[in-house]
Order: sequence, then C-alpha cells, then structure tokens
Amino acid sequence: MTQTLRLKKNADRRLKAGHLWLYSNEVDIEATPLKGLEPGAQVVVEAANGKAMGVAYVNPNSLICARVVSRDPNMRLDRSLLVHRFNQALSLRQRLYAKPFYRLVHGEGDLLPGLVVDRFDDVLVVQLNTLGMERLAEEVVAALDKVVSPRVIVFKNDSSGRRQEQLERQVTLAKGELDGPVLMEENGVRFHAPVLDGQKTGWFYDHRANRAWLNGLVAGKRVLDLFSYIGGWGVQAAAHGASEVLCVDASAQALERVAENAALNGLHEQVAVGEADAFEALAALKADGEQFDVVILDPPAFIKKRKDIPNGERAYAKLNRDAMRLLGRDGLLLSASCSMHLAPERLVDVVRGAVRHQDRHGQIVYQGHQAADHPVHPAIPETAYLKALGVRVFRD
Amino acid sequence: MTQTLRLKKNADRRLKAGHLWLYSNEVDIEATPLKGLEPGAQVVVEAANGKAMGVAYVNPNSLICARVVSRDPNMRLDRSLLVHRFNQALSLRQRLYAKPFYRLVHGEGDLLPGLVVDRFDDVLVVQLNTLGMERLAEEVVAALDKVVSPRVIVFKNDSSGRRQEQLERQVTLAKGELDGPVLMEENGVRFHAPVLDGQKTGWFYDHRANRAWLNGLVAGKRVLDLFSYIGGWGVQAAAHGASEVLCVDASAQALERVAENAALNGLHEQVAVGEADAFEALAALKADGEQFDVVILDPPAFIKKRKDIPNGERAYAKLNRDAMRLLGRDGLLLSASCSMHLAPERLVDVVRGAVRHQDRHGQIVYQGHQAADHPVHPAIPETAYLKALGVRVFRD
Repeated sequence: MTQTLRLKKNADRRLKAGHLWLYSNEVDIEATPLKGLEPGAQVVVEAANGKAMGVAYVNPNSLICARVVSRDPNMRLDRSLLVHRFNQALSLRQRLYAKPFYRLVHGEGDLLPGLVVDRFDDVLVVQLNTLGMERLAEEVVAALDKVVSPRVIVFKNDSSGRRQEQLERQVTLAKGELDGPVLMEENGVRFHAPVLDGQKTGWFYDHRANRAWLNGLVAGKRVLDLFSYIGGWGVQAAAHGASEVLCVDASAQALERVAENAALNGLHEQVAVGEADAFEALAALKADGEQFDVVILDPPAFIKKRKDIPNGERAYAKLNRDAMRLLGRDGLLLSASCSMHLAPERLVDVVRGAVRHQDRHGQIVYQGHQAADHPVHPAIPETAYLKALGVRVFRD
Repeated sequence: MTQTLRLKKNADRRLKAGHLWLYSNEVDIEATPLKGLEPGAQVVVEAANGKAMGVAYVNPNSLICARVVSRDPNMRLDRSLLVHRFNQALSLRQRLYAKPFYRLVHGEGDLLPGLVVDRFDDVLVVQLNTLGMERLAEEVVAALDKVVSPRVIVFKNDSSGRRQEQLERQVTLAKGELDGPVLMEENGVRFHAPVLDGQKTGWFYDHRANRAWLNGLVAGKRVLDLFSYIGGWGVQAAAHGASEVLCVDASAQALERVAENAALNGLHEQVAVGEADAFEALAALKADGEQFDVVILDPPAFIKKRKDIPNGERAYAKLNRDAMRLLGRDGLLLSASCSMHLAPERLVDVVRGAVRHQDRHGQIVYQGHQAADHPVHPAIPETAYLKALGVRVFRD
C-alpha cells in the first residue's frame, strides 16, 4: 500500500499553482512523519484536508523533501510513464532541431524532476540528481532504450546536487562502450565533447541560441572568449569568420580540447589559447595594451546559494568592468550568467555599472536565455537560470 | 547664456547611474524655477552642489521635466551632434541587418530622447515625441539627409506621448512625396507598410527576431494570428509553410492589408481573415469547435499606466486562457506583451495561470524581447518593454 505525505494547512498553494517541489517544513510530520518514509519511495501527497494532490518521490534527508512526478494520485513514475514522458520530450526536440544533438530531458522542465539527459546522436549522457531518480535508474535505461535505442548510455553521476541528496558521485557506463569524447555539432560547427570527464554532461547546449546570435556578428572581428572551456563560443566564432580568437581557461586540458576542436574545423590558425585565471588574464591583457572587438564572458555560476548573492554580484561586476576595458571604441560584450540566483535585472545592472564606471555608453541589443531544449516550467522560477546579454559598448 | 536647472539634494542619483530623465519634483525650484524655463530649451543640469552634470532639454509642463541629451555640459543637441548620433545608430544597424529595413533611431536607447526613426529603405518615418525634440525638427531632417539621404521623410507625429507634452498631433511630409504604403521586407517576406495612416510608424520592427523564431516552427501547422494588424506574424507564418492561417483584427482596413500582403507573397490561398474583437473571436471559434496548432497573441498594450496594472493583468490572463483553449493536445502559444508596466515574470505568471486553469502542462521554450534595433538603455528600465513567450502547451 502506498504511503502518504500530508501537508500542513495552506502548504498546498505552491503545488496548486503548478510547482513540483515540497519543502520539509511544509509537511504535517505529526500526521505523516517524514522520517518514517522510505528514502526515494513514491508517496501520495495530500492537502491538509486529506485531498490527494498527486504522487511524489521523497527524500526525508533533503531540504526539498519531495518532488511531484504526477498530478494523478493513481499514477506512479515507472517505466511506462518514463516512456511516455521521453516521447513527449523527444517530439519537442524533433520539432526544434534537424539533427540529434540536444538536451533530451531537462528535469522539472520536462516534468521529470532530478533527471537530465543530453543526447549526442547515439550516445546519451544521463544525470540522476536525486535519490528518487537514482532508484529508477534501471527503468530510466530501459525507457531510453525503448524511445531512442542509443548505442551508449553514460551515467554522469557526479553533480553537486547528488551530494545534497547524500548520493555517491561516480561516472559509469549503463550501456555500450565508450573510451573518449563524442563527435557532435552545434550551429553547424563540429566539436568533440568529453562526455566522460568533462564539465557536467561534457557540453553546454543551453547557450546554443545565444551563440547562434553572436555568430552573426563576429566576421572579421578579434574575439576574446573567457572561461572558454572546450571552445563552444570561441571555435564557433572562428568558424563564423572571426579573424582571431583567444580562448582563455584555467584548465590546460580544456584548452587542449579547444585546439583539437579548432583543428577539427580547420581553424587552428585563427584560434589561440591562454591558460590563466580569468581575472589575471584580463589584467595581463590590459597591461599589454590588447584590445578586442568582441569579448565573451560565460563564467561558471558565481552564486550557488542565496547567501552568495552579495559576493557573487561583486564578482560579476568586477569581471564585467575588467572585460569592458579591453573593448575598443565600439565593441560588443557578451555577458552571461548561469546563476539562477542572479535575477535578469541584476545582470543588466552589472552591465550598467561597468559602462558607467568607464564613462562609456551601453546598448543592450540582445537578451538571451537558455535554449528551447531547456524548457522553463512556468510555475518553477528555479528552472529559469541562464541569462546572456549582448551589449554594444561605445564612446560618445 | 544657457539657463541652468538645479537638482535637489540626492536627486542626481538616477542621473549618475546613467538614466536620462528628470522628474519635476526633483528640481530645486527655489534656485531654478521650472516655470521660468522656456519650454523645449536646452539647459545645463546641475547637482545640488552646483556641479554640472550634462545638458537636457526641458518641458516644464511634463512630469518628465527634462531629458538629458549629453553628459558633457559644453555640448548641445544640434545638427552636428544629431549627425554624430545618427551615424552611431546607423553603424549598429548596418552590422545587424543586410537590408535597409529597421528602426534607425530608438529614442533613449540611442541617446536621443523623444526621437524615433523607422527606415523603409529610402523612406524614413520620424516621430518627434517630446517638445524638446519637436523644436529640433529642422535639424533632425537636415541631419537625416546628411547621414542617409532619404527620398522621403514622413513626420508621423500622432503619438499619445505628444498629447502628454501638449503637442499637436499630425502627419506631414518633411521631404519628398508619398501617397501610399511603402514596400518593405522582414525575415525574407515582403509587405506593404502603411506609413502614412497605419499604427505607429506603420510597421512593428520590434518583433522581428520573435517572428523569425516562430517562423521555424510553423511548417504544416494551422495558425491563428490574433490582433493581426496587417499580417506581420500571420503572413510570415504562411510564407514559412503554415498550412492555414487565420488573421483576426477589429479593423477592416488592417485586414484588407493582410489580404494584400498575403497576395504580394503569393499566399492568398493560405491566409484567411476575420474581422472581430479578439475576445469575441476566441469565444466564437471555441463555440465552433475550431482548433489550432499555433496561436499568436500580440495584443496592443493593455497597461498604459501604472494604475492600469490590475485590470491589464486580468485582461492578459483572460486572453491567454481563452487562446489556450483553442490549442489541440500539443500546441504552441506565442504570447506577447508590449506593456512596459507588465514585468516579464508577470507574463510568465499569466501563462502559468492559463495552463493550470485548464489542467494542461506548459513549457516555456522561448523568451523573446524587442529586436536589436530597439536597444535597451541599461540604466533606463523603461526602454525595455517587449516580451514574447513561446509556450508549448500539452496534455500529459
């Protein structure tokens, strides 16, 4: 018999509005002690008045103690529902993209809390980020097999989210064999994505549309790509006609891959690399009198938790100020943030402050977000995390 | 000798942050009586401590009593500075667009408060929206002549903003002859834009990028375009393969132009029109059991002033609910708002509410804004007004 999880009075509001998360302080633990629930089990969620509101999987040891997997209390997230959801997710991507390179499943945005699947043609990279999803690992593999029949399925289970859920962090192969990067394509440019040992799933599909926008404005330009990782922005810029691209990253391994990806597209002459901390690189480039037409700032999340907001905003501000100093009289700054806790208008303010600091003028000509294969759930603001501003910076 | 306008203590903060507007309650009217300033004149703005902060033109009878035209107190907005600013504006558009169809000047976003210029090849449509800019009409024409040598310059001076500035509303020709719509192109589709007697400048370039996005998703689809005006969305959808498009507008004249624009592109068979109030049309279509794959909602601003927010949000909510009912099991809603007073997250909430109301699921797969030729000034939130959400709506 399925266990239940009873909410306190009025604690059902967020759920009614469409959200999928429950916090531990919202549970009526006298009626349904959280500690009595089996970690990862699926339970029926009830409002304070006893009305069944849906099914969720629980983790009594996590702040988000339950995530709704269906609004129908008679459903369970099993192989059959996973197949249904994967088909829904696939049909969206097939409408959006001509080739099989995309995020196939984006967690809550695809009504599958805790699950991420990136597709690189016949290689799927899966992240099980919660205990509830971890328990469904076998069903996930079986359902993916049924819907897309991949050659390889990688479990890239090393996310920081897993630590919060008290799960082990490891990378394993759930199906097939793989011993290195996989070939993929974005905006018509080819890359080798290190799906086994790179960051996250090996590639960041979320900036696809933002890169496509920038690609249209780099012909003949000198471009600086900070936090370049394996060259997603920089190599694409070179492929779209940038005369010269400098990719800077703190990781020598990432930069080796930038060089490989440049060579893969016949662009080794246009793309240079520099191993350095981004802030130190900006200072050194300034000292050397270097100038660029386009500077790309796509840093890691400076704000991981709400309490990091003040420090994080200061870091974004310094980064944008320092980067702007390297632009000539009429340059373009692409300033991104993947920090969910940085509100869009705060990034605008970061740019505003940098422009004013140097007595320049700024025009925001582009406001970009995560690509369409990272759908935002309209009731879950936490699913909207990516910002990218295109800013023309000029002197009057 | 130039007059000065002295600010109250701490009233210079917004200016220092980069904003260009001054409100009448921020002026130290004992030191510099607003009523003593000549309406439309350019004055030096001083902080409370006497420090010169820039030059602004004034309108003592407007809530926004002054708008900064230069941060250099020695400058004046004259023919020479207009030529400089027009060249800056033009160089941005030439980088962005291959053909001469765009907003050339977007007011504050191009550091030219109160001035809008839309370009249709060799026809320029100008809006002088403030008294200060009205006084510069001759210089504006001369500077435009110098920078782009247009064949025709239209003064489309019938904006509601002019009423607030106590200016007459009229349409006149400042240069050349014109007796009807002009031929233009957007996203590869041709239109006749009624620049003399249409809405605003005759065409809404601001949705160009949002339309381009939608164009990629309409092939083979049945599309409803509400508030169609002259068919910017609907005719483009048909040109990009929509099997059937219904354009609904309350204006018979606009619909005649939809039909002409469809015919201009050889699409008269794909595009039908319906003259009706949008809300009534939605009810009638529902009663008839009609369904669409894609519904486009691009209504006029329901929120013109801050006090309209509650009523306006209710109108957006009803519109989105009613529109969503016409979508099949797996449809796409393009929900736009040009109300500056509707915050982006409120439009998300409108969509969320509509989805929940019908117990459907929604995925926001696109968050669009005004196109790049409508630059946002990073210190002036009021310059960011356009939102467009692409929402996949489906049943689980």
